[in-house]
Amino acid sequence: MTRWRLTVEYDGGPFVGWQRQENGPSVQAALEDAVKAFSGEAVTIFGAGRTDSGVHALGQVAHFDLAKPADSETVRDAINFHLKPDPVAVLETEAVPDDFHSRFSATRRHYRYRILNRRAPATLAAGRVWHVVPPLDAAAMAAAAQELIGRHDFTSFRAAACQADSPVKTLDTLEIENHGDEIWIIASARSFLHHQVRNIAGTLKLVGEGKWTVARVAAALAARDRRKAGPTAPADGLYLTQVDY
Amino acid sequence: MTRWRLTVEYDGGPFVGWQRQENGPSVQAALEDAVKAFSGEAVTIFGAGRTDSGVHALGQVAHFDLAKPADSETVRDAINFHLKPDPVAVLETEAVPDDFHSRFSATRRHYRYRILNRRAPATLAAGRVWHVVPPLDAAAMAAAAQELIGRHDFTSFRAAACQADSPVKTLDTLEIENHGDEIWIIASARSFLHHQVRNIAGTLKLVGEGKWTVARVAAALAARDRRKAGPTAPADGLYLTQVDY
Repeated sequence: MTRWRLTVEYDGGPFVGWQRQENGPSVQAALEDAVKAFSGEAVTIFGAGRTDSGVHALGQVAHFDLAKPADSETVRDAINFHLKPDPVAVLETEAVPDDFHSRFSATRRHYRYRILNRRAPATLAAGRVWHVVPPLDAAAMAAAAQELIGRHDFTSFRAAACQADSPVKTLDTLEIENHGDEIWIIASARSFLHHQVRNIAGTLKLVGEGKWTVARVAAALAARDRRKAGPTAPADGLYLTQVDY
Repeated sequence: MTRWRLTVEYDGGPFVGWQRQENGPSVQAALEDAVKAFSGEAVTIFGAGRTDSGVHALGQVAHFDLAKPADSETVRDAINFHLKPDPVAVLETEAVPDDFHSRFSATRRHYRYRILNRRAPATLAAGRVWHVVPPLDAAAMAAAAQELIGRHDFTSFRAAACQADSPVKTLDTLEIENHGDEIWIIASARSFLHHQVRNIAGTLKLVGEGKWTVARVAAALAARDRRKAGPTAPADGLYLTQVDY
């Protein structure tokens, strides 16, 4: 039995999310079905981040145990072969010790949130960005982001469905980057609450529009009340970019 | 009557190309139909580059004449409104003098060709790159590109259907850039022959794979024979990025 670590890229658009569900195709099921097709084994694949429906990944990490002996290139290529035509690809495979766990061994997760900030609608980036028409003040967004960095009770930015034991998380990085007609929000932490990045993005967008002050973001955080922060930004703009171990 | 200059972005995937044709939807027809819908006028829209089926644009330039008085924001927003859900968007509109012609006034056209160079198939970039599995030597490609820069008879890189009067063109820029797991070919010239960039990309890929030497590219150019150069790279990877006037 070998434990395999996978680095996975996907377009989240056609999926109900990472996790296997009854109501539609999931990334997890696509991968499990591909492993079954090449090995005959019914495995469970564990992901580092349970991305929601429509959320993309450039560097999701997952693991599973396989009895069939195989080298890492074969595992990668065979899974990719059977994944077609789903927009999911295994970028890397690595045999890891039995105590490696994609979710519990992770020390940091990195997300990118892409906002297309222009008048014209998205064409090539449709489904991969949040299209925001009013011009956003990136400097104001960056100032507001500073209020959220560090260890806080993020109840105001937590989805009602969140299953985490505690709303206290340490947000290590929250940066605003300009990329042509896009503004990217870069967020890194050991772990995140459900919808935390999207709720932060939805709040920082209000600051960028000039509707909210930096002080209001600080007050929203301090309130520990989901109703005090901004709305949840769409899944389309969110990418799980990297997981560290 | 006002002459309007448009800067247009599109996903070329669903189209038979820029030019209006009987056999399917074109970008030109989508724009002309959108102008008709908002103004009632049956206009002809002229593009700077007649991109082929599947070729994308980040900065195509076009022009047309409109009798209806309107400001530039209204023209842009009205066309964009009526373009939905086609993946075509007008980024900018500008009223220009009557002697401006998107095609004939252009002084330089800029193209990007994106190669996804990795083992795993494309997911988010599917349809937007050429997926090439063998590792490419970007330095060798750059050395071969040097042989093609300047004023040459590009018959070896010209499609049979090309309607240009002369095969002699001046290639101002041909650069190779690394972008993560992608290699980009950047090409600039006053004008290009039909399929010139794609034929150059298909040839440089052979150099990158180590199948062709730099000397063979120089010989292919000198031969003035389409059969001596490499195959035509797929449309998916090509973008008209900018047109200068």
